[in-house]
Amino acid sequence: MPELLKSKIRTIPHWPKQGIMFRDITTLLKDAHGFNHMINLLTERYAGKKIDVVAGIESRGFIMGAALAHRLGIGFVPIRKKGKLPAEVVSEEYDLEYGKDRIEVHKDAITKGMKVLLVDDLLATGGTSAAAANLIKKLGGEVFECCFVVDLPELGGKKKLEQKGYKVFNLVEFEGE
Amino acid sequence: MPELLKSKIRTIPHWPKQGIMFRDITTLLKDAHGFNHMINLLTERYAGKKIDVVAGIESRGFIMGAALAHRLGIGFVPIRKKGKLPAEVVSEEYDLEYGKDRIEVHKDAITKGMKVLLVDDLLATGGTSAAAANLIKKLGGEVFECCFVVDLPELGGKKKLEQKGYKVFNLVEFEGE
Repeated sequence: MPELLKSKIRTIPHWPKQGIMFRDITTLLKDAHGFNHMINLLTERYAGKKIDVVAGIESRGFIMGAALAHRLGIGFVPIRKKGKLPAEVVSEEYDLEYGKDRIEVHKDAITKGMKVLLVDDLLATGGTSAAAANLIKKLGGEVFECCFVVDLPELGGKKKLEQKGYKVFNLVEFEGE
Repeated sequence: MPELLKSKIRTIPHWPKQGIMFRDITTLLKDAHGFNHMINLLTERYAGKKIDVVAGIESRGFIMGAALAHRLGIGFVPIRKKGKLPAEVVSEEYDLEYGKDRIEVHKDAITKGMKVLLVDDLLATGGTSAAAANLIKKLGGEVFECCFVVDLPELGGKKKLEQKGYKVFNLVEFEGE
């Protein structure tokens, strides 16, 4: 029941700045039952789908991505902020509210034809996820689905990713409540 | 067999700077068999030990920490760099090669008497881990053990943590090879 998960996510008003309702999943993660239930729900969805690897976006995406990869019996690939990965990378720029940033993945992390499940904790405007999906495609991988714990539909990220041809899945969503 | 794990860790010479032999675990993580084996070994060690929660250090510690917490059926607590956690935190300063940095944990993430397993990917000088262990103690938690995938014994981190009274475990070690 995603309602159980939603009830364990804490909202921090006005963080990191005035007007933002921050959805804090740490209260879900620290809860043995909640964390277990979250990974079980994702495992049910993706088991048997012949996914080759889970790619998690730094850094909260590492948490559910790695636990899910382990349950699926497959490997885990970190997609990191610029300059953090030591070997040769491909890199993708994306827009921030003010300015731009980059994410990167190791060139040898994904090979042609691999089915990759992209995982992050939260979908907002979709800028980071779209850049991460592009990295996977640059390396010849197939984005099986973009998977999130939380979607904030008002910010339009799901629509943006779907318009680019990606499947999107999330466990819970928050409107401006 | 930790030898299997060691064989899957890649060494990047002179990264992030001249003279450093960087031990890159991403090649282990992406390998289905290697990642699975790593988490199985850790699960065998910690199952049945009545550990309450796994605390993982940002950001590579999130990867094995979260997968291990899930296998143990317990919750996961992220220990993060300063300014990343949205609710009230306790904070601990530690020394870098030049200057200082801070790590933080949510005040309500750990309660008095909790048995906490501290997890990170790599033990070097032990500065970050000692600060993380201090955070756990500040909140009244008990550090069950400090657990790493890789130890670099020449850098003295294990000795430092043991002198502070912590148990330390690692799966593999690299001398200056």
